[in-house]
Amino acid sequence: MVAFLSARDIARLVHRVGARQFWFRLVDYLREDFARWRAFEKSPRFASHSPGGVIELMPTSDGETFAFKYVNGHPGNTVLCLQTVVAFGALADVRTGYPVFLSEMTLATALRTAATSVLAARRLARPESRTMALVGLGAQSEFQASAFHAVLGVDRLRVFDVDPEATDKFERNMAPFGLEIARCADARAAVSGADIVTTVTADKKRATILAEDMIAPGTHINAVGGDCPGKTELARALLLRSDIFVEYAPQTRIEGEIQQLDPEHPVTELHELLTGAHPGRISPEAITIFDSVGFAMEDFSVLRLLRDLARETGVGTGIELIAAPANPKDLFALLQTQAETRPPQTREDVIFSG
Amino acid sequence: MVAFLSARDIARLVHRVGARQFWFRLVDYLREDFARWRAFEKSPRFASHSPGGVIELMPTSDGETFAFKYVNGHPGNTVLCLQTVVAFGALADVRTGYPVFLSEMTLATALRTAATSVLAARRLARPESRTMALVGLGAQSEFQASAFHAVLGVDRLRVFDVDPEATDKFERNMAPFGLEIARCADARAAVSGADIVTTVTADKKRATILAEDMIAPGTHINAVGGDCPGKTELARALLLRSDIFVEYAPQTRIEGEIQQLDPEHPVTELHELLTGAHPGRISPEAITIFDSVGFAMEDFSVLRLLRDLARETGVGTGIELIAAPANPKDLFALLQTQAETRPPQTREDVIFSG
Repeated sequence: MVAFLSARDIARLVHRVGARQFWFRLVDYLREDFARWRAFEKSPRFASHSPGGVIELMPTSDGETFAFKYVNGHPGNTVLCLQTVVAFGALADVRTGYPVFLSEMTLATALRTAATSVLAARRLARPESRTMALVGLGAQSEFQASAFHAVLGVDRLRVFDVDPEATDKFERNMAPFGLEIARCADARAAVSGADIVTTVTADKKRATILAEDMIAPGTHINAVGGDCPGKTELARALLLRSDIFVEYAPQTRIEGEIQQLDPEHPVTELHELLTGAHPGRISPEAITIFDSVGFAMEDFSVLRLLRDLARETGVGTGIELIAAPANPKDLFALLQTQAETRPPQTREDVIFSG
Repeated sequence: MVAFLSARDIARLVHRVGARQFWFRLVDYLREDFARWRAFEKSPRFASHSPGGVIELMPTSDGETFAFKYVNGHPGNTVLCLQTVVAFGALADVRTGYPVFLSEMTLATALRTAATSVLAARRLARPESRTMALVGLGAQSEFQASAFHAVLGVDRLRVFDVDPEATDKFERNMAPFGLEIARCADARAAVSGADIVTTVTADKKRATILAEDMIAPGTHINAVGGDCPGKTELARALLLRSDIFVEYAPQTRIEGEIQQLDPEHPVTELHELLTGAHPGRISPEAITIFDSVGFAMEDFSVLRLLRDLARETGVGTGIELIAAPANPKDLFALLQTQAETRPPQTREDVIFSG
């Protein structure tokens, strides 16, 4: 039996262990995996493009455990009242090749994205940071807000979205957290006075959500929304003024904010921060940017945590994802076992029934 | 909900529709898909190698439906009493990117491999063929025997395996079919007098299961066992004397019997037979070889059939493989719904509970 977690199971599991504890553990699993960066197979993702969108398979392995995620991107799904991105994934034992864990990953991806942002911000934001601007209040926004609140103690939010309904939804979802939330008139107003600025807008184009003159010295920018070719949120001049941190430079140069820069522009990879190879923030005045695009290893980390938590809590179900013949050399016997419960009635049935 | 079939469900489904009917439909689905060859995206498989084996993701798409298979290959699993190969796979709707069907595929792969052999043999074996030699009586052997019996009326088998226990297992599994089975002393004896020769041995090396002088004019050879680099079953001289048919030449030149030949050696792809672009058998004396290695499109075909049969028969279950938020822009609400069933008890719980 392969352990399986649905979205409902993941929610149940987060609830069972406690959300704060869950965020801390997820950030910790991510930190552990980024710190052993060289152990991971960094494969290019497989992408199947069609007029309506893309379907991707994202594999990775640390030599002991293999992980992959199935994920799509279909911007037109909104008119069908469907999600633009859905995902599921699996873990397998590299030693035997057997899959051991299957999980919904739309929710898991939202969780790991926010936790990776926190992991970077913990090293890059000024330690006294308590106020975060949040520009873009779509599906990812509350995950960012609650992860930053739980792990870094961010308790003042300055928020903006072009859609007032999105802001209403955000306020409704965040109400139980007891945070101070300031509804701002525009991105410039939201950013004013913030220690950390998180951009997570959805426009599929080269936008300038943050102009250079909006950002004060000492700000940490958590740039989450610019995550594919042709989609950016930050002014080029702002990038040039800042210290830039990325997950995996070859991928981010194609998908991230830095697609706007010269391919040789210096950036630092997150694992260099976590192993101490790079000091991170170099002064209280520096502007730091985490140019987040999402990386297969983060899926590995969240799957690993979900698998462990499922074991610890007993949440989830088992499914017969692969055949389990009594004799591995006798696969055909699996077809015949059906005869035990239903007597053959036709000539056709006899063929497999014994 | 995504429809899910376990191995048990597949067996149930085969039993429900009748094995003979199942084989005919599977061969038909394969024929349809091979005939529209150009519609398919032929992607290289992704492979993650480790000391113990390989884990592969095999994707394909016809522009409407995307399919992928997870499959491993771990020869050392036998000492652990595990299968050397296990597999599962999924279908997704290309228009929305949503996965729609998940299935066990160890059993499904065995079924599609045998049905593809039959599809080729139907065009290549002499029409009066009734006697098949079967060399190698491992996990795939009974699938070959029953598919050839059901679809082509092969009712006399001449069998050989180096392991007498494998032969016992084969005879036991095939007993209900009412076939004439001759237990032969070696491969040469088995092949003698056969219209069709199926080789499906497991040795991971360059073996010579069939020497050139063993094969009479007019024989169709269904070469299934030679399916990866370094693993072959047929003498090179036999290949040079025969008309060779393959699934997809670029892949077979690496993995099939023809890895022994010059890369320019002429071969015919199966789809050319099915569209009439190639006549197939050119004389009653010709020796034909189907050099089978297994191709992603065959997984597509069997998944498509299993999905359709699951719908027709109601066999299978639904699983919540992906999140389904009431409002696609409000993923966070999924975490909060848990509060309805369990009152929050700690400060941590409150964070997601509302």
